[in-house]
Amino acid sequence: MIAKTPMPPYYAVIFTSRRTDIVTSYYEMAKRMIELAQQQKGFLGLESAREEIGITVSYWKDLESIRNWKNNAEHSKAQGRGKTEWYSEFKVRIAKVERDYEFNKIEN
Amino acid sequence: MIAKTPMPPYYAVIFTSRRTDIVTSYYEMAKRMIELAQQQKGFLGLESAREEIGITVSYWKDLESIRNWKNNAEHSKAQGRGKTEWYSEFKVRIAKVERDYEFNKIEN
Repeated sequence: MIAKTPMPPYYAVIFTSRRTDIVTSYYEMAKRMIELAQQQKGFLGLESAREEIGITVSYWKDLESIRNWKNNAEHSKAQGRGKTEWYSEFKVRIAKVERDYEFNKIEN
Repeated sequence: MIAKTPMPPYYAVIFTSRRTDIVTSYYEMAKRMIELAQQQKGFLGLESAREEIGITVSYWKDLESIRNWKNNAEHSKAQGRGKTEWYSEFKVRIAKVERDYEFNKIEN
């Protein structure tokens, strides 16, 4: 679903990745990390899709929330396995959302 | 592919969408808009994936480049058809990328 985020400003973490062919524990980890992120202070929403590359955008109240999430113990362990097992390449971009607008056919 | 962007700061346009079942001209338009975006001044890169939702992130030098792209005549026409035909819902977020880092198994 498209994330229901509050009025800007808030932050986005754009995580773009390419997978290895290692599937062991990957889907369990991905599901668990979404659950865990949702429980963090300052979490605002998440959007994800994968084809040739995967794009996961998570939204956060502020930089402190992002820092806490990066350093979360269970998340750190997953990040380690991400590098050794699941991802051949990734890029993380931290961005401040300054403006947004939307369109919804049902509401219009 | 993961976009090769310059050192921050630069801007990201996060376009998240849900499609209707109308396929007429959609794939031609999507391909053409990528070609056209790449020709614009200030364009830095683009990443895209679709599953339940589509996420397209385009990267730009500055807000002026984003404004020019939004107002591009051919793009404006596509935006109009997007609302009437191809998308049931979308959200656009304009964000300033403040920091990025990457991991690449081949280079490490």
